[in-house]
Amino acid sequence: MKPAVVLLSGGLDSATALAIARAEGFECFALSFRYGQRHAVELESARRVADVMRVKKHLIVDINLALFGGSALTDEIAVPKGRSVATMSQEIPVTYVPARNTVFLSLALAWAETLNCSDIYLGVNVLDYSGYPDCRPEFVEAFERMATLATKAGVEGRSRLKLHTPLISLRKSEIIARGIALGVDYAWTSSCYDPGTSGQPCGGCDSCLLRQEGFRELRKPDPLVERFKAA
Amino acid sequence: MKPAVVLLSGGLDSATALAIARAEGFECFALSFRYGQRHAVELESARRVADVMRVKKHLIVDINLALFGGSALTDEIAVPKGRSVATMSQEIPVTYVPARNTVFLSLALAWAETLNCSDIYLGVNVLDYSGYPDCRPEFVEAFERMATLATKAGVEGRSRLKLHTPLISLRKSEIIARGIALGVDYAWTSSCYDPGTSGQPCGGCDSCLLRQEGFRELRKPDPLVERFKAA
Repeated sequence: MKPAVVLLSGGLDSATALAIARAEGFECFALSFRYGQRHAVELESARRVADVMRVKKHLIVDINLALFGGSALTDEIAVPKGRSVATMSQEIPVTYVPARNTVFLSLALAWAETLNCSDIYLGVNVLDYSGYPDCRPEFVEAFERMATLATKAGVEGRSRLKLHTPLISLRKSEIIARGIALGVDYAWTSSCYDPGTSGQPCGGCDSCLLRQEGFRELRKPDPLVERFKAA
Repeated sequence: MKPAVVLLSGGLDSATALAIARAEGFECFALSFRYGQRHAVELESARRVADVMRVKKHLIVDINLALFGGSALTDEIAVPKGRSVATMSQEIPVTYVPARNTVFLSLALAWAETLNCSDIYLGVNVLDYSGYPDCRPEFVEAFERMATLATKAGVEGRSRLKLHTPLISLRKSEIIARGIALGVDYAWTSSCYDPGTSGQPCGGCDSCLLRQEGFRELRKPDPLVERFKAA
């Protein structure tokens, strides 16, 4: 089996991207980050997802992006609640973390290079996050090009880095349907930007609202919400 | 004054790049990394250089690249000694750290974005390190392009990231001459890949040999070596 590095936040999208990588025949190396996020409870979800999906190895890397400031996800800026799903993608929200995907992908590239691996999976989505510059196809292509020039294998012509973004043009409901078909248990994925200490979703942040809309379109209950109701 | 983020390892090249950024009128924000390097003594040099050159702020970020393995600079692979300066640039050496410049530049980009800054300085050099994929002009251009697409300012068309590499085509002796003209005190820069705990250079690694050749071409003693002789 060929190796792939999969960025795994512990959220719905990255769990689905991991399931797809596995279904496409890759031996998966999952990479998560403790980056100063207020929702670090997602790392517990990442651990559980990595375990259930039997990844070859799961690394959690510490990198304190809060040092640089500038985001509601790491700073003491309030996470916005109750915004309209229809308009939230039209601007860059305060939950955007400067250069986050660039930083995470660079570290995935470092690991990929030592694994002699030229495939990286990333669960970005342009519909939900069109306000995030680093979730767009132009960014993905530019990163691939840069990464191929940055590495030994690329320079020696042995391989070209392929950045797989299987969710990039899917609606949230399509992502969930795809994941369910592949056996993803969404009860243990964490999407909320501002969860309680137990991981209970706030229900009002952009990420919670997008997730709710996804399950609503599918006419299915969110197993994560059910789990907290039952508890 | 416009802000610039300057990658500062504490070595000869990055100290010179910082002096050039300052001379070009930028207010400098210096960024260093504790990345698992065996030559972490260079961070003491970085602190001193940042202080002497009166940077606006100096951040040292922890990021454990040794987790990924694959380099003599972080692993227990031996640092090669006594290689020929004439041929060392023809291959990728074991001291290459996978994706290091990509990772460091991504973090510089994160800081630049929160500083509302579109200038980053990097002391790479293609002559000495033509074996390192991420020291070549093609890589620098690809990174600039990716970074402009990755950021708010780029997407909004407010600015384009400029990656300054003022040393990229200079010989080591030319870099030193430039630095001396700008008042850099090379006695407090650390280049060695395998120094003693006091920071004394080994004198035999690629980096020491290139530095020696630079000072020899200029017919000047290396003030770092003089400092250890005097001690």
